[in-house]
Amino acid sequence: MAYIYGRNPVMEALQTGSIVQKIYVRHGNQSGKISQIYRTAKQQKIVVVNADVKKLQQMVGKVNHQGVVALISPVRIREMGEFSFTKRRSASPLAFVIADRIQDPHNMGAIIRGAEIFGAAGVIFSARDNTPITEVVVKASAGAALHCPLYRANNLAQTADWLKQNNVWIYGAALDADAALWDIDFNRDCAIIIGSEEKGIRPLLLKKCDQTFRIPQIGKTQSLNASVAAGVVLAEMVRQRSRK
Amino acid sequence: MAYIYGRNPVMEALQTGSIVQKIYVRHGNQSGKISQIYRTAKQQKIVVVNADVKKLQQMVGKVNHQGVVALISPVRIREMGEFSFTKRRSASPLAFVIADRIQDPHNMGAIIRGAEIFGAAGVIFSARDNTPITEVVVKASAGAALHCPLYRANNLAQTADWLKQNNVWIYGAALDADAALWDIDFNRDCAIIIGSEEKGIRPLLLKKCDQTFRIPQIGKTQSLNASVAAGVVLAEMVRQRSRK
Repeated sequence: MAYIYGRNPVMEALQTGSIVQKIYVRHGNQSGKISQIYRTAKQQKIVVVNADVKKLQQMVGKVNHQGVVALISPVRIREMGEFSFTKRRSASPLAFVIADRIQDPHNMGAIIRGAEIFGAAGVIFSARDNTPITEVVVKASAGAALHCPLYRANNLAQTADWLKQNNVWIYGAALDADAALWDIDFNRDCAIIIGSEEKGIRPLLLKKCDQTFRIPQIGKTQSLNASVAAGVVLAEMVRQRSRK
Repeated sequence: MAYIYGRNPVMEALQTGSIVQKIYVRHGNQSGKISQIYRTAKQQKIVVVNADVKKLQQMVGKVNHQGVVALISPVRIREMGEFSFTKRRSASPLAFVIADRIQDPHNMGAIIRGAEIFGAAGVIFSARDNTPITEVVVKASAGAALHCPLYRANNLAQTADWLKQNNVWIYGAALDADAALWDIDFNRDCAIIIGSEEKGIRPLLLKKCDQTFRIPQIGKTQSLNASVAAGVVLAEMVRQRSRK
C-alpha cells in the first residue's frame, strides 16, 4: 500500500486505473476539484473520509497535500489493449476468464484466486456493471490479484469480438446449455464467461459464444456460486491440458 | 422460520439438533433453567438477546412463554447414526463431504451448496471446531442446506473410522500429496475431507485417509478457497461417474 497526495494526482489515479482504496480529505475542503474527486470516487464505490491536517501529515509527512490523500493498492488494472498475442509467454493455450456482472466482491476475489491458481492469462471485467477491484476483492483473492492480470473493459461484447479475431474461442457457462462441461475442448486458446448468479450471462455477450456448456448438476439447488463455477471449469481445463 | 417458546422446549431444541437461530429472553429473567439455556447457547455460538414482554408477544402471541422464545430455522442437523447404509436410495456410489475446521460461514454455506448440487449424501462437520450452521450458512448455501443432510459429529476421526467400517473410502485434499485429483477413483463410496484454508486437514484425521490427492495448480497463490476446492473435487467425481 502507498499514499499519493494532491488534487491532480489523486484525480489522475482515479482516472487511470490505479487502485484507489480510500481517499482522505481535509475536513471542510470544498474546492471544485475536490467535488470532482468526490463524484468520481462515488461512481467507483470508493470511500472518502474526512481527516484533519495531523492525520494527513501522519500519512504523507509535511508536504503540499492540498487537503487530499489517497491510499493506493499495489494492484494495477489493465486495458485489454495491453495484452499482446505475439508476446505470449508459453506454448500452451491461453485461457481468459470473463466475469460478467459479478456484484459480490468476495466472489470476484475468489474468481481471481481460482484464475491465478489454474494459470489463466487474465480476468476481464466490465468497468460499468461489475464490482470494482476494491480492497475486499484483493483480500478475498488471497493475493492472487497481485499476480493475475486484471483487464477492465468498456464493452465486454466488443472485447469478445476482439478475442475472436485473435482466434480465442469464447465459451459460456449456461444452465440450459446442451453440452456438458466435459465435452468442451479446452486445448485451444479460450475465454470462459462466468455470469452473475442471478442474471447469468447478458444476452449480447451470450451471442458471442462459440459454444455454451452446462456444469452437470444432480441436486435441486439452482446454480453454483459463481467462483465455485469458475473453479470447476478452470480445473477441467487444467485436467484436459495435462492429458494432452 | 418458526418460533418455539417455554424453557423446556427451548432447552430441548438446543439439545436435539434443531437449529436455534436466536434466543429472546425477557429482561431480568434469572431462573436456573435460563442460565442453562444461556450456557448451552454460548457453547453453540447462538446469540441470546434481551426482549420485553411486548416483543415476545409479537412473536408468539399471548401464550405462557415463560420469558423465553427461540427462533428456529427449518434446517435439521443430524447425528451420523441417523444415516443407514442399508437404506441407500440409489445404486450409484455415495459421496460424503467432511468439512474440517471451516470457520467462515459463507465458505461453509458454499460447501453445502456444492455438495447438494453434485449429489453428495451429506456434509459432515465437527460440533466443536467448525462454524455452526447459522442463518448466514443457510443463506450462503442458497437453500441447499434444506436439501442436503447435515451431520454434526463429536469426533471426526471416529466418524471416519465408522465410515471405513462401512466400506467408504476416505480421501483427503492436501497440497503436498503425490496423486493428482484426476488419478483418484471416485467410482466407489467415498468421503472427501476438505480442510480449512489456513490449517489444512488435522493430523489425526489425515491419518485416516485411504488416499490423499492434490488439486493441480499452476499459479503462485497458495491454495483455493475451501468451497471452490470442494466444488472442483465433487465436479471431478461427477465427471468420472458419468463416464462409467
